[in-house]
Amino acid sequence: MKTVTVLGSTGSIGCSTVNLLEQALDQFQVKVLVGGSNVEKLAEQAISLRAEHAVIADESQYDKLKTLLSGMGIKVSAGRSAVIEAAHIKVDWTMAAITGAAGLEPILSAVKNGGTIALANKEALVCAGDVMLKALKKANALLLPVDSEHNAVFQAMADKQIDQIKHITLTASGGPFRQMSLKEMKTVTVTAALKHPTWTMGAKITIDSATMFNKGLEIIEASRIFSLPEDKIKVLVHPQSVVHGMVHYTDGSFVAQLGSADMRIPIAHTLAWPKRMATNVSELDLAQLALLNFEAPDEERFPAMCLAREALRQGGCVPAVLSAANEIAVDAFLKGRIGFLEIAGVVEKVMGQIGTQPAETLEEVLFWDKRARELTQEHLGVEVT
Amino acid sequence: MKTVTVLGSTGSIGCSTVNLLEQALDQFQVKVLVGGSNVEKLAEQAISLRAEHAVIADESQYDKLKTLLSGMGIKVSAGRSAVIEAAHIKVDWTMAAITGAAGLEPILSAVKNGGTIALANKEALVCAGDVMLKALKKANALLLPVDSEHNAVFQAMADKQIDQIKHITLTASGGPFRQMSLKEMKTVTVTAALKHPTWTMGAKITIDSATMFNKGLEIIEASRIFSLPEDKIKVLVHPQSVVHGMVHYTDGSFVAQLGSADMRIPIAHTLAWPKRMATNVSELDLAQLALLNFEAPDEERFPAMCLAREALRQGGCVPAVLSAANEIAVDAFLKGRIGFLEIAGVVEKVMGQIGTQPAETLEEVLFWDKRARELTQEHLGVEVT
Repeated sequence: MKTVTVLGSTGSIGCSTVNLLEQALDQFQVKVLVGGSNVEKLAEQAISLRAEHAVIADESQYDKLKTLLSGMGIKVSAGRSAVIEAAHIKVDWTMAAITGAAGLEPILSAVKNGGTIALANKEALVCAGDVMLKALKKANALLLPVDSEHNAVFQAMADKQIDQIKHITLTASGGPFRQMSLKEMKTVTVTAALKHPTWTMGAKITIDSATMFNKGLEIIEASRIFSLPEDKIKVLVHPQSVVHGMVHYTDGSFVAQLGSADMRIPIAHTLAWPKRMATNVSELDLAQLALLNFEAPDEERFPAMCLAREALRQGGCVPAVLSAANEIAVDAFLKGRIGFLEIAGVVEKVMGQIGTQPAETLEEVLFWDKRARELTQEHLGVEVT
Repeated sequence: MKTVTVLGSTGSIGCSTVNLLEQALDQFQVKVLVGGSNVEKLAEQAISLRAEHAVIADESQYDKLKTLLSGMGIKVSAGRSAVIEAAHIKVDWTMAAITGAAGLEPILSAVKNGGTIALANKEALVCAGDVMLKALKKANALLLPVDSEHNAVFQAMADKQIDQIKHITLTASGGPFRQMSLKEMKTVTVTAALKHPTWTMGAKITIDSATMFNKGLEIIEASRIFSLPEDKIKVLVHPQSVVHGMVHYTDGSFVAQLGSADMRIPIAHTLAWPKRMATNVSELDLAQLALLNFEAPDEERFPAMCLAREALRQGGCVPAVLSAANEIAVDAFLKGRIGFLEIAGVVEKVMGQIGTQPAETLEEVLFWDKRARELTQEHLGVEVT
């Protein structure tokens, strides 16, 4: 029996993870489930998975959780420090799916156990890359990427011949504005930007997909996970989102991973690794799909990728600044305060303003994260007056 | 330094192998080159690769080879038994690229050394599958497939999780008649059948590609190489021949190998395995290619695949009979003696006539091979009178 913890069990990735665990309770023993504020969902999951411990981050929900789970023999706790403490309970496998900067401390707490970390939080490696990699190494913990692109590259790298890799490719759907002119992109609505062609995801990540900031952040992540320099990480637009990632070897071979756009596939891969587990995911039918398209990304219309490459080259706090500034800018776009193309513009300004600063501790990372948010707000304030 | 032997060095696969070795003479020491009858080419290769020993199968060319290599310090021999003897010289890696039934004995001789066998000869596994697998096991030799489809599957199976594989897919270009009606196929010319859309190969294999007998033989090969039953080996038509093969795991992931249609890619993979070697093969550009098509194969227009599956299910001598009958039938088509669609018809008749007979020794295999050829000739004799 593999012991598991799910950090962020009530979110999209968390629910997919719970779904897989429900189908394989004979192989997994669920130690801890951590939810954000959806207390009903968390209680339901804890019962269904016979979890030992359920933690709700939102302290105000403690009593409700206690009531919902009373008499079930499930330990209940609440609040930020309870989350960090529960993440530290030793398990074989942890799903790290708490999103945003809020996930950093709990994930670091889980890393210290030295087990396997299935990483679905982008910020951990983008903003706190150095901190995270150092902690993983120190604890001798194993990182398995959950993001479909990175998981694909990991699978395609099964023989771990890093020195024999020419480069890797992360595919990108290209988002809803793939074929739109720059002029038209200037005036796109929030509703249009929220219509992702292939994946169903939250609002922030859907906008990141439309701006291709998402792909930029993934370039940074890939660099950390696979120890590859920025110029060995290529992006290829592939609207069907069926080929998720590829490894290009020096001999001319590409190895790729393909699959339906269902996050249970990469999650199951990390859950069963180094073996595989059966899932009831509907199998991709290439004959029915009939065709796959590929095109080079347009860096003029989607400058986010260039900004991310620049942040990666500069290092230090710059990736954290890029990520934080983007978060605020996307929020402003969603609220109708700025236009679609202004998102990248604001991020670039903030990056330039802060420059390269060290970010070797979590405190430094969080400091620059906060500073970037403030500066972005200032810019937006100026722009809306 | 890896020691290597190339059996069939003057053929298409042999020349590609020599080309790769020429670029990496610091890593490989060439022990033996075996050619069929092209003595000039063999001598040139032996000099260029500083081979220790050159063998020409055609005994009448012995003197010429001796003259061409005089004073070079290269050992020279000729004739069938010299080939078998030279194949037995212990090396780390042997390219088994002598085509047809003629390759069986030399390849078995090489297998007995217990090194790595890069297998490019189809008949070895199709006709003498049991014999070959037993010999490989006994000698503790390693088989690496060179055929682009099988090599692709091997690469996609890097983590060797056979029990976690749902099925594998061999792709097929579909040949020149992919979109032709059955009625039109009845009267196709030899010239039209020899125009393969993506690969440049010999006449026999090009016709096999047009009838899809090639894919049928590959299903049999894949079953032997990967220990998979017939129903776990699927075929997908993919006209661009860029995705060569795929492994479908139980969790919903497909892992695929892609590359240009250049045999140096799979050869280099087997040559450097378990590492990789750099090649100067032109890299596939998916953005430039822009699209990849996939479609289910049409078993009505291409019955060869069904015949091969039937032969695999029946076992014993039936795959050898299928292969031999097809060879004679293709020759008759190339000579204008039968129509394109009659190829599969004749093969089916001969298969039915012989039925399932044991083929556990090389002698038995060769007996049924000969018998199938005779019966096919008889049928053709009847049909042309």
